[in-house]
Amino acid sequence: MRLEKGKIIVQKYGGTSVGTVERIKEVAHRIAVRKKEADAIVVVVSAMGKETDRLIALAREMADIPNQREQDMLLASGEQVSSALLAMALNEKGVKARSFLSFQLPIITDERHTAALIKDINVEKLLRSFQEGEVAVVAGFQGITPAGEITTLGRGGSDTTAVALAAALNADFCEIYTDVEGVYTCDPQVHGAARKLKRISYESMMELAGLGAKVLHNRCVELARKYNVKILVRSSFNNEGGTWVCGEDEEMEGALISGVTYSREEAKISLMGVPDKPGIASLIFIPLAEMGINVDMIIQNIGRQNAADVTFTVPEDELEKALQVVGNVAKEIGAEEVHYDRNIAKVSIVGGGMRSNPGVASRMFQVLAREGINIMMISTSEIKISCIIDSRYTELAVRVLHDAFELGRA
Amino acid sequence: MRLEKGKIIVQKYGGTSVGTVERIKEVAHRIAVRKKEADAIVVVVSAMGKETDRLIALAREMADIPNQREQDMLLASGEQVSSALLAMALNEKGVKARSFLSFQLPIITDERHTAALIKDINVEKLLRSFQEGEVAVVAGFQGITPAGEITTLGRGGSDTTAVALAAALNADFCEIYTDVEGVYTCDPQVHGAARKLKRISYESMMELAGLGAKVLHNRCVELARKYNVKILVRSSFNNEGGTWVCGEDEEMEGALISGVTYSREEAKISLMGVPDKPGIASLIFIPLAEMGINVDMIIQNIGRQNAADVTFTVPEDELEKALQVVGNVAKEIGAEEVHYDRNIAKVSIVGGGMRSNPGVASRMFQVLAREGINIMMISTSEIKISCIIDSRYTELAVRVLHDAFELGRA
Repeated sequence: MRLEKGKIIVQKYGGTSVGTVERIKEVAHRIAVRKKEADAIVVVVSAMGKETDRLIALAREMADIPNQREQDMLLASGEQVSSALLAMALNEKGVKARSFLSFQLPIITDERHTAALIKDINVEKLLRSFQEGEVAVVAGFQGITPAGEITTLGRGGSDTTAVALAAALNADFCEIYTDVEGVYTCDPQVHGAARKLKRISYESMMELAGLGAKVLHNRCVELARKYNVKILVRSSFNNEGGTWVCGEDEEMEGALISGVTYSREEAKISLMGVPDKPGIASLIFIPLAEMGINVDMIIQNIGRQNAADVTFTVPEDELEKALQVVGNVAKEIGAEEVHYDRNIAKVSIVGGGMRSNPGVASRMFQVLAREGINIMMISTSEIKISCIIDSRYTELAVRVLHDAFELGRA
Repeated sequence: MRLEKGKIIVQKYGGTSVGTVERIKEVAHRIAVRKKEADAIVVVVSAMGKETDRLIALAREMADIPNQREQDMLLASGEQVSSALLAMALNEKGVKARSFLSFQLPIITDERHTAALIKDINVEKLLRSFQEGEVAVVAGFQGITPAGEITTLGRGGSDTTAVALAAALNADFCEIYTDVEGVYTCDPQVHGAARKLKRISYESMMELAGLGAKVLHNRCVELARKYNVKILVRSSFNNEGGTWVCGEDEEMEGALISGVTYSREEAKISLMGVPDKPGIASLIFIPLAEMGINVDMIIQNIGRQNAADVTFTVPEDELEKALQVVGNVAKEIGAEEVHYDRNIAKVSIVGGGMRSNPGVASRMFQVLAREGINIMMISTSEIKISCIIDSRYTELAVRVLHDAFELGRA
């Protein structure tokens, strides 16, 4: 089945956007207005406000480690409630609407409970719904396995549902409604000069997301890039324009730097006086990987004769686990000492324009040095440069970098 | 697929029985104990405590008359939550368990949203679950249409799910756990001498349920009778024996009278001075039926020449609607006056033994007369006699009838 013509928009509303009865009614109003501009609208909803947290707390009361299959069954109820309520609100406003759960379309995923991957979406029922003139409201965050088991998609799951539906429907674009107005050049709470971007490329957005900017989850941006789905991030609390996330050729501003971002959620571990033999690094990092600990940045200094210092960062909430592993390894390989530091921050600049502009890194180091901020570690990719610094200088670093690269100017 | 041998028990836990995290854990404990006595257990759960009421309230905030399809989608989430939590609690206790939603079995119903009828149940997945040694936890109250739409079964829905599953599985019996200990000879709050019945026949239970005793919904008892499913009604708050609801041949006590029951939820309407012509009754009752008003008892007195008084009862909450209809009819047919009375009660005695004992009715009238209680209307069936009296004498009537028929004695 195919629509003869017409514009398809996918919209996604997050938990705060559908957090109360009043908010859901406002969302219904927004959809009613949008409906006039599009031939077909699919709306993806998250669970209301803190409902998912409430359900997780209930599960934790039942078991220290709740059965994951049952947890997915439990959590999926949250989006079932919000999608049914939104469909009711729309029908009440005279906008024909119908809610859909994953099993009803279906949205097929693999078997990985609590972190399933979407394998296939059947859009036939959605197309039929469009033909009936209905707004299709789809419960986000969830899927169904070929065997009929309910799964959930993990963090950022509803965004992923929305982008995957936009791809499957070949939609014109995907609007992600959230509680911020778009993607900023830096955290507006850290620096008043932060500017909302009109456009940002998938690549830069992924770096920003991965580096701590919490607007969009990396996974959904990756999916959007793969299927070339244009995303418009905007607020459901006003009518501001938002930020387009799209291919680089569409990134009109062609910015050298898109933004400055930071994260304080990492910790640093150093093994001092590691005998400098081939294969030592693997003795350190394989056991960490086996424990599922995500190592981010790594540096190795060859200092004194035949001994090196190895320093790396891990997520702060995995520090304890990492130190246990590293303690054992240190004994094995004969390292002299293990140090760690929680009070670090990663400050990064991101931008597609960096590729053709080799001076960006040295400019960044210079700016930080001028403020007396010591750089402990550096890591670079084609479109980002990250520095580990003492966490107390986080806000200062963000502000001076933002100003030095003139990000406040459009 | 078939179990080679063995005992299958279906258990149903109502909303108060799974109302809190602690209650769900207690239910899990009860199931763990029961599991030792049965080869296979299916547990049907209602939504937690007042969850269904909370969801209905949310729906009412969305629309005066919420879209019924969406309301079913909404309400079905309640049992999804409780069944997942119970399965988690069981797994945590080392009792393997798996929850099932209607679409997963499936439990097929017709298309009547909010009041669907079960058409078919596929028990294959349950049998497979038994073979895995799992307790199967089924979300009650809901079904799925052949087209994949979620339905709910209406009042007493989870009881109906349990009895239907017991029938489909040819289970040994169906335990209905509730917040009372069983079926009593009368309301224990009205008369301290009320006695819990060990057994009651389907027929008597249906009369009791229909007449206001709120332990089991009529629909589930009717289904149990049709498929000869033995029901054990008992409390989830203690280990008392409960009441068996079963075929009359199994009703060991062979009681003349099983119980005395009452209802204050009716009102009485009288049309005075109705011209006594053939077909007059249909002129009154057809329009009421067309408005969906349930007329219960009807009496007609031929008093003065060519004029009759017609009196009947309707549910009290439909009185206003009924009076509008009757007002119009009265004009049409030339009735002299319309009276109504809300302050009435229906007191009934129920028992299979009545059939062969014609003296029961006159004994009932005598007992009420001795207390000066005026009988306004009488209606009888093979196994019950109901009298409409002034509502202020309700409790008195229940007590004196209970004592006169010696129901307090086993």
